[in-house]
Amino acid sequence: MSTASKIRRTHPEWEIVVFERGNHTSFAACGMPYYIAGDIPSPEDLIARNPEVFREKQNIDVRILHEVVDIDPESKRVHVHDMGKDQKFWESYDQLLIATGASPIRPDIEGIDAQGVFSLSVLQTGIDVFKYIEQNSPAKAIIVGGGYIGIEMAEALLARGMHVTMIDMASQVMANMDADMAEIIADYMSSKGVNLYLNEKLTRFETDKGAVKEVHTENHTFDADLVILGMGVKPNSEIAETAGIETGVAGAIRVNGRLETSQPDVWAAGDCAESLHRITNKPTWIALGTVANKHGLVAGTNMSGGDQHFPGVVGTAITKFQDLEIARTGLTEKEFKQESIPYKHTLIQSRTRSGYYPENADIHVKLFADEATGRLLGGQIVGFEGSGKRIDTIATAITAGFTAEDLMYTDLSYAPPFSPVWDPVQTAARRLSSMVGKLQS
Amino acid sequence: MSTASKIRRTHPEWEIVVFERGNHTSFAACGMPYYIAGDIPSPEDLIARNPEVFREKQNIDVRILHEVVDIDPESKRVHVHDMGKDQKFWESYDQLLIATGASPIRPDIEGIDAQGVFSLSVLQTGIDVFKYIEQNSPAKAIIVGGGYIGIEMAEALLARGMHVTMIDMASQVMANMDADMAEIIADYMSSKGVNLYLNEKLTRFETDKGAVKEVHTENHTFDADLVILGMGVKPNSEIAETAGIETGVAGAIRVNGRLETSQPDVWAAGDCAESLHRITNKPTWIALGTVANKHGLVAGTNMSGGDQHFPGVVGTAITKFQDLEIARTGLTEKEFKQESIPYKHTLIQSRTRSGYYPENADIHVKLFADEATGRLLGGQIVGFEGSGKRIDTIATAITAGFTAEDLMYTDLSYAPPFSPVWDPVQTAARRLSSMVGKLQS
Repeated sequence: MSTASKIRRTHPEWEIVVFERGNHTSFAACGMPYYIAGDIPSPEDLIARNPEVFREKQNIDVRILHEVVDIDPESKRVHVHDMGKDQKFWESYDQLLIATGASPIRPDIEGIDAQGVFSLSVLQTGIDVFKYIEQNSPAKAIIVGGGYIGIEMAEALLARGMHVTMIDMASQVMANMDADMAEIIADYMSSKGVNLYLNEKLTRFETDKGAVKEVHTENHTFDADLVILGMGVKPNSEIAETAGIETGVAGAIRVNGRLETSQPDVWAAGDCAESLHRITNKPTWIALGTVANKHGLVAGTNMSGGDQHFPGVVGTAITKFQDLEIARTGLTEKEFKQESIPYKHTLIQSRTRSGYYPENADIHVKLFADEATGRLLGGQIVGFEGSGKRIDTIATAITAGFTAEDLMYTDLSYAPPFSPVWDPVQTAARRLSSMVGKLQS
Repeated sequence: MSTASKIRRTHPEWEIVVFERGNHTSFAACGMPYYIAGDIPSPEDLIARNPEVFREKQNIDVRILHEVVDIDPESKRVHVHDMGKDQKFWESYDQLLIATGASPIRPDIEGIDAQGVFSLSVLQTGIDVFKYIEQNSPAKAIIVGGGYIGIEMAEALLARGMHVTMIDMASQVMANMDADMAEIIADYMSSKGVNLYLNEKLTRFETDKGAVKEVHTENHTFDADLVILGMGVKPNSEIAETAGIETGVAGAIRVNGRLETSQPDVWAAGDCAESLHRITNKPTWIALGTVANKHGLVAGTNMSGGDQHFPGVVGTAITKFQDLEIARTGLTEKEFKQESIPYKHTLIQSRTRSGYYPENADIHVKLFADEATGRLLGGQIVGFEGSGKRIDTIATAITAGFTAEDLMYTDLSYAPPFSPVWDPVQTAARRLSSMVGKLQS
């Protein structure tokens, strides 16, 4: 929809048709855990703009419950299934944007389709979970997967008064952070009542009259009235692949910086498409709203005849569990090893505010630099109020090619309610700087 | 003390003597308003490290109540007044650091020395204000000056239950921000009970039995039981000037990037010394703890025989009035005009969190770019929780030489509790980018 809006602003006369297989356009998927928690009064609040608004205010022909089932790049047309009328038809295009998003991974195991087993994808799935809780008052919830969705849903279901167990097949939560940071998060979640089981491989669900009753792993059996799957997502790229459009990392649609696919006049943007990683200079796949929105703007500019280049990502992300803020950017230890990049790192503990100021609290900052050049390559933050958004400073410094020393000398803000006089990010940079031979300390 | 500590780490055998005319070393001047407000239990909490600790743990010979009254760079010695014994003596040096700080400006007007008229400088002045409030229960407070100290003291004195009037001779509060941003701040302060009088030039204080009774300006007379002067500070550089050491902006001691003064083996650091402004590439004078601490580290490294270069400042600062966060970096409109730099700017209003997330609130972001190149040159932020520290992202981007478009495409973090999907800083960058001809929007 971002691309459509951008094109409409540039070309008031163009015909713009959007096919959407679901019920809604432009909804805030990231808001669903907070809706389920009861923090947001209505699912309507998560809808940024309704299809009717696009149609009436912007003359964008949005057709919901229409699924594109085939792309024919040779004849420049798409095969569309009108799910309301259960009819199929062909629609031609001059330019085509594929913005099919991503879908939750659902393992093909016994009981996966039982009542009470949910993934979060389109808005309706969030509404379904909310209704299920209202109608069934589940007492015991099992969350499968300790990533962003898992952690946010753990907060949500605790808030709804449930007994919450989280299982993950890995040896840590938050697979895209390092084990030491993940342990801080896990300890805090445990202290707040989450029963955490790591190294647990899901095998099947036991059901009773069609509803989930137990979750079985290789090692344990857990009672379950409600199950949330947070096992990651995969790009919705089958339709592109079938049409002979090149795919890449994790099966996401391969695009260049202009968001062009391998087929002329076919573009891809959002969770279904790759991005360039600005550190490794290789394609990567990151399914996040920030990236999708930038993609949409770039694709819209270029489809309108402009020339914008999406410079790529550094892998910045943020979440929270209750009052513990969690953020990361750049590469992790695992990725440094995969990429064979020699690195140095430091992990410091500081305070969110001046030590004498009320409500100052713990913040942990981990920072990585290239061993040879001192150039910053990654950062991870776990801490209380005011911690998480500090990742933006690190992300900006990484993007700029700053060394640890450059960051240490950057003129960051300080006042007692906001920071110690050396911001924790700079305390980490200062320590790291001394380790890469740029400063005697 | 930062320099002394740094030298001690490098040279365990060197003799290090520190003369301090006051009672304390290493105290947090920035914390005084919060101590006066009652947020911090004891003034002791503001002391980072006592002279005894420096002496015993670090073998640094700290002598409090010793004022250096003369420097003789030719014979490499200083003339010291031992205020306790009221004796003077000469002490020789191999290397000398001048770290005399800055002092509040106190206009030479009638009644300035009356009881109840205070400036905040050394820790004792904060203690004096606190005691005065305890002993005299002042009902009506006048704050002269609407800068950082003025705003922080307005918060503090309201918290102590006083009727607070702020007067400023300028036509706005926060002289180092633009009038439009200052107006948002002024409106909020007024709504919270501060009686704000602008364009008011202080003329004299009326006293009764030695205590302040009225504040007179050219236009008004205000009843006053307590007066706080927040009229800015000036560098304590007389001693250097007298010794023939070059001074510059605002009378601050001129230093190069290594923090060397014009005299061999004489260094200067902290509030008494200049810094390079990284945008104008000219000397500037910014009396802030962040700068002073970096100065201290650089001077200590170089005095130890190392070679560190302080790259300068971009003018980042932050404060708050109650729950309104206020931050700035780079140049203001006034400075662009002074420097004859053609610029474009935008002022956007957004939300601190996703619009549907609880407790999302207003944030105003003003952003400046060079008209020709699009390069970022300044930013100002006023908003509620989570707003202020976003200035660090802008400061880092400015330091990196980012254009507005570079910032717009930087991979900043997003989750509903922390930000809209386009961070307000990026919403401003996106808008600004379209104004400097880098993006069609």
